[in-house]
This record gives sequence, C-alpha cells and structure tokens, in this order.
Amino acid sequence: MSEPIIRDLRESDLSNGFLETLQSLTTVGEINPEKVKERFREIDLDSNYFIRVAEIDGKIVGATTLIIELKFIHNLGKVGHIEDVVTDKKFQGKGIGKKIIHSLLQEAKNRGCYKTILDCGDEVIPFYEKIDYEGKSFHKHGNCMRFDH
Amino acid sequence: MSEPIIRDLRESDLSNGFLETLQSLTTVGEINPEKVKERFREIDLDSNYFIRVAEIDGKIVGATTLIIELKFIHNLGKVGHIEDVVTDKKFQGKGIGKKIIHSLLQEAKNRGCYKTILDCGDEVIPFYEKIDYEGKSFHKHGNCMRFDH
Repeated sequence: MSEPIIRDLRESDLSNGFLETLQSLTTVGEINPEKVKERFREIDLDSNYFIRVAEIDGKIVGATTLIIELKFIHNLGKVGHIEDVVTDKKFQGKGIGKKIIHSLLQEAKNRGCYKTILDCGDEVIPFYEKIDYEGKSFHKHGNCMRFDH
Repeated sequence: MSEPIIRDLRESDLSNGFLETLQSLTTVGEINPEKVKERFREIDLDSNYFIRVAEIDGKIVGATTLIIELKFIHNLGKVGHIEDVVTDKKFQGKGIGKKIIHSLLQEAKNRGCYKTILDCGDEVIPFYEKIDYEGKSFHKHGNCMRFDH
C-alpha cells in the first residue's frame, strides 16, 4: 500500500471517493451533486471547520472533521470537536484514521484549543485511548446525551 | 421571581451579568473587555452559533450555546451541539436552564437538525433525561472522549 497523503478536502474530492468513504461510516443518502457542492462551499467558507482526508493512489480512502468552538469560559478558550472519523472498509487497520487524527490534533493545537473532544461508542474507546500523540491520548471524560428531533 | 425572558445574547449583556453567570459553571478567567467584545463579534457573525440567555429584572442569570454542525452524511444532515449550560447559582432549581434548552431545541429543529447532542457528567444525566420537549427527551447515547493539549 502506498503511504497516504493527509490533506484538506478539495471540491474535486466530492466525486473522487470522499462520499463513498463516508458510506463505510453510516448512511450518506441520495447524492445531489449540486447540493453536495453547496454544502462543501458553505463549510469551506468557515475558518473554524477542517475536513481532512487521506488520499492513496489518487483516491480518497479516509476522512475526519474538526470544528473549532469559540467559548467565553476558560480565558476565551477554544475547543476542538472531532466528528465523522472514517476509513474506507477496504483500507481499515492500517493506521490511516490515526494519521488523520494526529494531523487534526496538531491543527487544534495550532489554533489554540485547550482540549479536543469527540463522542464514540464503547467499542471504539480502546482505539482512542491508543492514539498517542505527543505522549498524550484521549481518555473517557463523560457521557454523550442525544435528543432526536 | 419574575418570569425570565429567553432571548439571544446581545453585546450589552457582556457587562450585564453574562460573564458573572458563566462563573457559576467554571473558570471564566481574566476579563479583557475589548477581547471579550471581539469574541462576541466573531461568534455573532457565524450564522450557525446561538448563545441564548435568560434575563430576569434586566440582568442575565442563565445562558446556553447551540452550534449547528453541517455534515455530508445522513442526506447532508445537520446536528445541534449544546454547550455551556449554566444558571447563576442564586437562580438554580427554578427551571431556567430547562427553558433555555427548550428554546434551543426549537431553534435546532427549525434549522433542520435531525439530532441535538451534548456532553455531561454522570451527575446531570437525570436533568437531561427529564427535559421533556414535545414529548421527547435526551438519552445517553455514547461516551465523551477528551484530549488535553
């Protein structure tokens, strides 16, 4: 396997494996190319959003989102939120997800976040506990509560 | 006690009880009025941020943030994130937090969110389970993982 290139999502990735990769995570739904591009542009304009992808042999096989939250507490603190961590099923178990998360933890640090958080099920807690970035890792800190509209 | 007015945060609230109210939640830190205003304006420009407050007798006594996340999964779905739920210690236990959360759940619904999530400690799970908005409530759905930078 070639080494993955970790970089920000580009508009051209929308038809180059990005949406197919997301299907390894959950339902993507019906794809209207114009609406998908519109969503990309909306996100791209927001300087607090980062969608980082892994490209192998010219195709997207992994992706993860980081959103920087601006707070008033903790000396006008910033918090990173990691969402939608996914690697294409055919490429799992090769450390690709970990590489993208490392890259986003560095981004969160560069942007001045004092912490980065994410929600996950019990079965993937060990994955996050083993991330090991700069000698630190994720630890369970609380519960995720959900309201379905 | 007068009935609280639930409304969006205004710049004038920054010196009218908003920051003091946050101190009932956690450390706010040193307050530089210019930097606080700068943070307010940055947040105010973002159409996906809502900071809703409770005003009683002209003073802010409660606040909660809603951030709308834009996704590619679930038919270009949107998810509400609730953060920094707080009521001034002197006004707790009167249903003020619940009123603000109801207002933000309605906002999330209006904005097309399919779910709204939040992170919390074990001790406040019962509070969120009893929110009861439109016959629905929050339920525990997973774990919050934290990385300290």
